[in-house]
Amino acid sequence: MDNFLKENERIDDLQINNLKIIQNKNGFCFGIDSVLLSDFAKGIKDNSKIIDLCTGTGIISILLTAKTKPENIIGVELQRNVADMARRSVIMNGIDSKVDILNENIKNLDKILPLGRYDAIVTNPPYIKVNTGARNINSAKLISRHEVECTLEDIAKISFKLLNNNGEIYMVHRPDRLVDVMEIFRKYKLEVKEIRLVFPKEDSQANLVLVKAVKNGRPFLKVHKPLYIYNSDGTYTDEILKIYNKNIV
Amino acid sequence: MDNFLKENERIDDLQINNLKIIQNKNGFCFGIDSVLLSDFAKGIKDNSKIIDLCTGTGIISILLTAKTKPENIIGVELQRNVADMARRSVIMNGIDSKVDILNENIKNLDKILPLGRYDAIVTNPPYIKVNTGARNINSAKLISRHEVECTLEDIAKISFKLLNNNGEIYMVHRPDRLVDVMEIFRKYKLEVKEIRLVFPKEDSQANLVLVKAVKNGRPFLKVHKPLYIYNSDGTYTDEILKIYNKNIV
Repeated sequence: MDNFLKENERIDDLQINNLKIIQNKNGFCFGIDSVLLSDFAKGIKDNSKIIDLCTGTGIISILLTAKTKPENIIGVELQRNVADMARRSVIMNGIDSKVDILNENIKNLDKILPLGRYDAIVTNPPYIKVNTGARNINSAKLISRHEVECTLEDIAKISFKLLNNNGEIYMVHRPDRLVDVMEIFRKYKLEVKEIRLVFPKEDSQANLVLVKAVKNGRPFLKVHKPLYIYNSDGTYTDEILKIYNKNIV
Repeated sequence: MDNFLKENERIDDLQINNLKIIQNKNGFCFGIDSVLLSDFAKGIKDNSKIIDLCTGTGIISILLTAKTKPENIIGVELQRNVADMARRSVIMNGIDSKVDILNENIKNLDKILPLGRYDAIVTNPPYIKVNTGARNINSAKLISRHEVECTLEDIAKISFKLLNNNGEIYMVHRPDRLVDVMEIFRKYKLEVKEIRLVFPKEDSQANLVLVKAVKNGRPFLKVHKPLYIYNSDGTYTDEILKIYNKNIV
């Protein structure tokens, strides 16, 4: 396996279906948000055609091969070296018949992929608006975290074009952007139908939100029960343990 | 006191500052939503000028005299007989130097009240879009529950006009309308800055949402910890008991 790795890369075990992932120690490594999103998206129907926008290391595409039964998944990543790393992770896991990694700007997808033909989109996009928040010095991290190359509006615009009627988009984002999410998604006829808020612990404010929207969906929002990460004693809650472990082979 | 009452009316004790309220047994009686909103709005600054849109029986205006220290509160109610009942409750409680009940359509307030001069608006508006949901046969209840006379857009439009810059609006609504709330409020430059979701119990979906928006506020949403109504054994949670009782004299 070691010839798969480039400088500063390491292989991490995803603890589900023996899946592994290559990550760069100095780059943007996946977090709990991607794991929660993959679990939240497990309602995606069998044999769906899925697109994973801003896939980064490929984490969500890879996890979805275990959480769902897709026809195929296209993971789209703008940064060439990150896309290359994701592609190597896909090959290493032997899931390259299911998952394609596309090194492309999501804004160009309407010139490359058929329109109105995808069943589901998943995305863990950059959270932070440009000109707000502390900038990362490292440019790979900058692009992963800030909307320098991909805004919420870019996501909504291309998702509307790619999804079939009633196609679904699953996204994880920060609660501080929830008004933006709801407004911008509705502008592009992606109606937010379900949200689940994630709280670090019982007495905290939410720090993540899982969103499901439906193309041309009828307005009616369902707010699921809260998802807590930690118990008051600092240990993981049962639900988090289940999300991380339940499909261990 | 009995000469205060008309047919089918009764007096209920609000269990706070000895306040009481007149309600019509066949009309729309206040619920936990109004109590939670009054508590959620307790951050309103001292000496504020407050408007309570769609006040109904006057419940929120009356509770706010105990939860806040306003300069004055104007409760606006469209239905003449309901406004009359609210006015009698205000007089009965001896708070008529603080609270005025105005029998008016909220859409006309910009012709009656000074613009840009109010510090806070509170509102428990009709929750249900017209043409959806089961209609109530009783027309007083119909107007209280359905947007036949007052829509979310009416609320937003008049609130923007009445509030001063950075003035606050506190509203309780149903989570299924949260996308509407965020979109419509933003359209009228009322930025939703804080929400708190209310869950009947731990494993339920949310059934109410408390919303705080700020006129011309900067986009950044804070999602407070969940508010639970019942413990798993069916008793009220400590927080609910506190909200209902903490100011008992």
